[in-house]
Amino acid sequence: MHKKLKLGMIGGGKSAFVGAIHRIAARMDNEYELVCGVFNRKPKYSSLTGKELGLDQTRIYGSYQELFEKEKQLPEAERMEVVAIVTPNHVHAEPAILAMQNGFHVIMDKPISLDLAEAFQIRKVAELTESLFCLTHTYTGYPLVKEARDIIKTGKLGAIRKIYVEYPQGWLSTPLELTGNKQARWRSDPKRSGKGGALGDIGTHAFNLAEFVTGLAVTHICADVNKVVNGRVLDDDASVLLKFSNGASGLLSSTQVAAGEENNISIRVYGENGGICWQQNDANSLILKWKDRPTEILRAGNNMSYLSPNTLHNCRTPAGHPEGYLEAFANHYRNFALAVKARQRGIKPHFEWTDYPGIEDGVRGMAFIETAVRSGKSKEKWLKLRVDN
Amino acid sequence: MHKKLKLGMIGGGKSAFVGAIHRIAARMDNEYELVCGVFNRKPKYSSLTGKELGLDQTRIYGSYQELFEKEKQLPEAERMEVVAIVTPNHVHAEPAILAMQNGFHVIMDKPISLDLAEAFQIRKVAELTESLFCLTHTYTGYPLVKEARDIIKTGKLGAIRKIYVEYPQGWLSTPLELTGNKQARWRSDPKRSGKGGALGDIGTHAFNLAEFVTGLAVTHICADVNKVVNGRVLDDDASVLLKFSNGASGLLSSTQVAAGEENNISIRVYGENGGICWQQNDANSLILKWKDRPTEILRAGNNMSYLSPNTLHNCRTPAGHPEGYLEAFANHYRNFALAVKARQRGIKPHFEWTDYPGIEDGVRGMAFIETAVRSGKSKEKWLKLRVDN
Amino acid sequence: MHKKLKLGMIGGGKSAFVGAIHRIAARMDNEYELVCGVFNRKPKYSSLTGKELGLDQTRIYGSYQELFEKEKQLPEAERMEVVAIVTPNHVHAEPAILAMQNGFHVIMDKPISLDLAEAFQIRKVAELTESLFCLTHTYTGYPLVKEARDIIKTGKLGAIRKIYVEYPQGWLSTPLELTGNKQARWRSDPKRSGKGGALGDIGTHAFNLAEFVTGLAVTHICADVNKVVNGRVLDDDASVLLKFSNGASGLLSSTQVAAGEENNISIRVYGENGGICWQQNDANSLILKWKDRPTEILRAGNNMSYLSPNTLHNCRTPAGHPEGYLEAFANHYRNFALAVKARQRGIKPHFEWTDYPGIEDGVRGMAFIETAVRSGKSKEKWLKLRVDN
Amino acid sequence: MHKKLKLGMIGGGKSAFVGAIHRIAARMDNEYELVCGVFNRKPKYSSLTGKELGLDQTRIYGSYQELFEKEKQLPEAERMEVVAIVTPNHVHAEPAILAMQNGFHVIMDKPISLDLAEAFQIRKVAELTESLFCLTHTYTGYPLVKEARDIIKTGKLGAIRKIYVEYPQGWLSTPLELTGNKQARWRSDPKRSGKGGALGDIGTHAFNLAEFVTGLAVTHICADVNKVVNGRVLDDDASVLLKFSNGASGLLSSTQVAAGEENNISIRVYGENGGICWQQNDANSLILKWKDRPTEILRAGNNMSYLSPNTLHNCRTPAGHPEGYLEAFANHYRNFALAVKARQRGIKPHFEWTDYPGIEDGVRGMAFIETAVRSGKSKEKWLKLRVDN
Repeated sequence: MHKKLKLGMIGGGKSAFVGAIHRIAARMDNEYELVCGVFNRKPKYSSLTGKELGLDQTRIYGSYQELFEKEKQLPEAERMEVVAIVTPNHVHAEPAILAMQNGFHVIMDKPISLDLAEAFQIRKVAELTESLFCLTHTYTGYPLVKEARDIIKTGKLGAIRKIYVEYPQGWLSTPLELTGNKQARWRSDPKRSGKGGALGDIGTHAFNLAEFVTGLAVTHICADVNKVVNGRVLDDDASVLLKFSNGASGLLSSTQVAAGEENNISIRVYGENGGICWQQNDANSLILKWKDRPTEILRAGNNMSYLSPNTLHNCRTPAGHPEGYLEAFANHYRNFALAVKARQRGIKPHFEWTDYPGIEDGVRGMAFIETAVRSGKSKEKWLKLRVDN
Repeated sequence: MHKKLKLGMIGGGKSAFVGAIHRIAARMDNEYELVCGVFNRKPKYSSLTGKELGLDQTRIYGSYQELFEKEKQLPEAERMEVVAIVTPNHVHAEPAILAMQNGFHVIMDKPISLDLAEAFQIRKVAELTESLFCLTHTYTGYPLVKEARDIIKTGKLGAIRKIYVEYPQGWLSTPLELTGNKQARWRSDPKRSGKGGALGDIGTHAFNLAEFVTGLAVTHICADVNKVVNGRVLDDDASVLLKFSNGASGLLSSTQVAAGEENNISIRVYGENGGICWQQNDANSLILKWKDRPTEILRAGNNMSYLSPNTLHNCRTPAGHPEGYLEAFANHYRNFALAVKARQRGIKPHFEWTDYPGIEDGVRGMAFIETAVRSGKSKEKWLKLRVDN
Repeated sequence: MHKKLKLGMIGGGKSAFVGAIHRIAARMDNEYELVCGVFNRKPKYSSLTGKELGLDQTRIYGSYQELFEKEKQLPEAERMEVVAIVTPNHVHAEPAILAMQNGFHVIMDKPISLDLAEAFQIRKVAELTESLFCLTHTYTGYPLVKEARDIIKTGKLGAIRKIYVEYPQGWLSTPLELTGNKQARWRSDPKRSGKGGALGDIGTHAFNLAEFVTGLAVTHICADVNKVVNGRVLDDDASVLLKFSNGASGLLSSTQVAAGEENNISIRVYGENGGICWQQNDANSLILKWKDRPTEILRAGNNMSYLSPNTLHNCRTPAGHPEGYLEAFANHYRNFALAVKARQRGIKPHFEWTDYPGIEDGVRGMAFIETAVRSGKSKEKWLKLRVDN
Repeated sequence: MHKKLKLGMIGGGKSAFVGAIHRIAARMDNEYELVCGVFNRKPKYSSLTGKELGLDQTRIYGSYQELFEKEKQLPEAERMEVVAIVTPNHVHAEPAILAMQNGFHVIMDKPISLDLAEAFQIRKVAELTESLFCLTHTYTGYPLVKEARDIIKTGKLGAIRKIYVEYPQGWLSTPLELTGNKQARWRSDPKRSGKGGALGDIGTHAFNLAEFVTGLAVTHICADVNKVVNGRVLDDDASVLLKFSNGASGLLSSTQVAAGEENNISIRVYGENGGICWQQNDANSLILKWKDRPTEILRAGNNMSYLSPNTLHNCRTPAGHPEGYLEAFANHYRNFALAVKARQRGIKPHFEWTDYPGIEDGVRGMAFIETAVRSGKSKEKWLKLRVDN
């Protein structure tokens, strides 16, 4: 008999972008049932969203404290099992910690926290409570991003030498935060977003993608960090030189002032024998360039025998039936559900089930933001990326 | 308070491709709840799928007759409201007619029936019972396919002169039906598939796409119909010359023996002033070519102000967060739900809600199959496409 | 010591498109020196062009008859050796025949003549005089078009089953011939263009490309031939179903009313094991799609070891230094020069040197035009392509 | 009467890559006639190449000193007017200076010299002698690169904010210089190449492209300079952060160890209103992305009315007849010829005729190489790009 995990949500009211995305992702594979939530700081708005989602009125709460309190008291068969936290960054650490201390597994929108210190705290609590934790770095949920990682892991490209990762957006080309736009407002406000603007919002995605695909750790960075739009308090543009643990060098670009760009995050990795290129705008293709033979295009699809088993596990349709952003997001949700259920059943999870981003990705992401911001102001060329507590 | 429609399903057992697609589409936008079904002719397999889907054991049925019988007797608050029929073509007409006669609205996988006569019967019953009916021609669910139609409707391209529509696949390049492949087996068996092989399976999609985007009706066809793979009983390849109601000419190609092709259905339409090109492999881009100014690329996204309101209604994410096949499919499900709910509330539906393929598409599709097959054997050049009962 | 062939030209005055192309092609590889010509029917204009080209005044002639007469009398060391005929179609056969009868080798712009009968005459004279003859079907001069042919010849794709060839243009979307446009005027005038409009101008290119790449002969055709623009006398659009000698089927489209299209001729050929795709807009890439492994992209370049020797012979630059239309054109000129010089030296030419289109291509092209035009008016479905004299 | 300029060449023997390119470029538009040269340090090889090119034996020289000496003594009607210097970098300054001092105009392959000091000397002599000087930075010869510059100059994009320029190659992924490869050998030898490896060979192209297209000057750089392949003496990879004169920031990447890459130099420039993207692999398209309306694709072609007059001047064919690398190269040759002829006639040249790269580009390129190499070794973050003598 199929069991759906009972999901609660913190944040994600009507005007929020990412709340709706999380809910679609949760529904996609029939692994979750949304049973409760607090969708807005104001009870009235929380209630409104909850009703629109068809929730039982008694399980639409006014605060996350109340949510945890009340849900804990429900019989196990009804009680929330996983909570998704989709609030602005300054409301990440506290509810996450409280959730884990109350016995709930956590799905959290990135970046993991307001600052590195908070990230360390989350990590500590997760270790103590043995909670499961998923950080929704969407892009590593794409099947062919996983395939890129798998191919590099096999050594087919040889030693990795050069990494290019880019995340260009244009939506903050104007001072949108001065208009009524809520998305722009909290993202450009240090109190709610943290030390990084674009660096936190999208730079961390790019950083995470680079480390995920290569299996390498960034050790040093040299960042050119800019506030391009007049009056902006946080960065809206950065170019970052990277050094990796194996001596490879890299280049990370994240900008929200590339007017006309949408959201075409991309990565290119070159090794001794060839290179691998992926971009979200053509998410179902993975380009393999070789030193001495024709370029190859690998294609996503659950019928493509040449893909790794893990990649196939993350495809729902045959090749040529394009899957996209929502499916990538949903892959994290599905895999996390499989991991949670394995935990509940006391069985050892397959690798596929554990293949979602977690706290360590979050900690490293926060270290990246803080070091990049520091580098932007420094006259010293290379700063070490420190992730020690 | 949000109301989900109670959905039943006929067909769509474990080994079926399209059943899972329908279920994801139904879940995507939280407009349906799967409450019952008969998933296989064999009760044992039906039950297995039903359990995996988490259905109440009492609502997993052994036949569609039983399904209708039992569901009809349930209290209205529990009773199935819409049934999705996702069986091979020979099990389309009968359950659809029975469903409508028993008061259920119908979602049907294409093509609508085994032959044109059946399609006429379905149409008749739908008219008599005033049932709502959605035929899942996936590709018209894509936002930018709707945009293409909307642009052409405005007359920006001028009078339409030339239409190219192609649906290339390669998966039947070998006699796959002689292996255990169930998908290949029923599709290449006239008893289950009807008179058309590739023509029915994908040719009808191409035909539907051409008529949908242009707003024109095909009046005459001249078809080259082939059985390329040795021993195949039904066509696996066809090229069809088309004449449209306004005098425009066209070219339709549907093949399942283009080895190496996946599923890249595409359409190009040229008018006096320019052309419009869309292909599924780049589904979130719509190319507009102009006689005398730069080519334009329109992009899908719920934040793209230049798109028509109807197109925006069919986007879930901002530009650059690619939506794909499952979302296109889900658009039909969502719009149909909105139409059904409007009917239930007795209100006049917005245009957006009624923008899903229906019986007339089905009837014309069957006429296309039959005329094309006939043309393939004829020495006469042009055959009229007759859709009269 | 390098020897340049002494080239004369008939046609190609200032307002002519293709004359300048021929001259660039002739210069590109240093194999020709333009020594004489008659560039316009009106001596004044002929003289003007000749001067601009820096020709010796005494070798700018008033008619092609005079050209042959005078050149023949010059000492062999000065005398024209090859003549390029770049006039409208009605001035093809006569000068070509006269040229060969006077001992000159001929480069001719396509199509070869005004009608099939003339083509037969040219063929006869060429055989009698043992003249060399090059017909500038540009597109088979592209390195990767040759590679496509070479790959198919090896049998890697298996038996060929399906061919798609398209030649879309939009420049005749309006009645341009009614304005002062000379290119449009002669092309749409049966007296100067022959029986085919777009069929002759670009359809023959598509037809030639299909036969060249596949190595197969078209045996039957069924054509939908249209005069889309009001008042046009010759076809400006055609879609043609094809049957090939090995039983394969195909689809040829040639149109000059696809508003917004430039000149993106393309071909796709599918065999049992995979397909091959080439389009002029991405001329330096050749896509190989395979039934059961990743798609490959072959790239032009004289440093690409995986290309055939013949393909490499037709590349001037390393990969990534794009060559285009002029270089493709020049490949015919260069190869023809190598063939002429081999003939002059009495040595057997390498295959590479003889790899340019010739009279047989011309004859088949004329047969294609005439049969297609006839088919366009016929109620019979399939017409045989007859090339017998 | 058309006048061809009499061209001499220094370097460009059989095994040289770029000599043949220069010669094709010189021939393309009938503006030059190669009359003399010294093609190799060894007279025997110089003579061999000269003969193959069909040169008069008496004008194939053994040294550039001899070349200038002898040519100067010839009557003006025969004498060389322009000399093309296509030798390795260490043989740039001396022959260039000698040429100008002897009254010859100079075409020089990039980079202009072995070091910045030499570049200053060349500049000084050019000023004193009033010689014309063309530096063949190929990529600014592409029509659509000129169009990009022209569009930015109009202010359509608003103030420029961000520049990305990349030049990826893979051919030095292995220690090719240790094999017999001559191209690799001199390029990786500081005595012949100068302080920069990839930086000099391709980084200067990227740098030049960025300054050309934006009309801005780079003021500061911060470079990560790498020797990736073991044992390599000069850089084979660099990533460079850039600051521009107007406060814009940029990112330049040049690498020769991106295994699998060919030569796809590209540039993206973003301003307040939109961005402009061009890449050599699709050289005939220019992408314009806009903040608030559809992306546009501008296409090269001498019939595209929306292009600037200067762009049209640099197109030979109608849109859809792709021109490439050789044509871009030839544009510099042609424009330089027009400028030289204007000088000879004592008339003021049109802007189009002077639109080729010159000494100032060369000086700035040398400053870029030297500053980047210095930055690569520095702990200081930003170094000023100094171009003062």
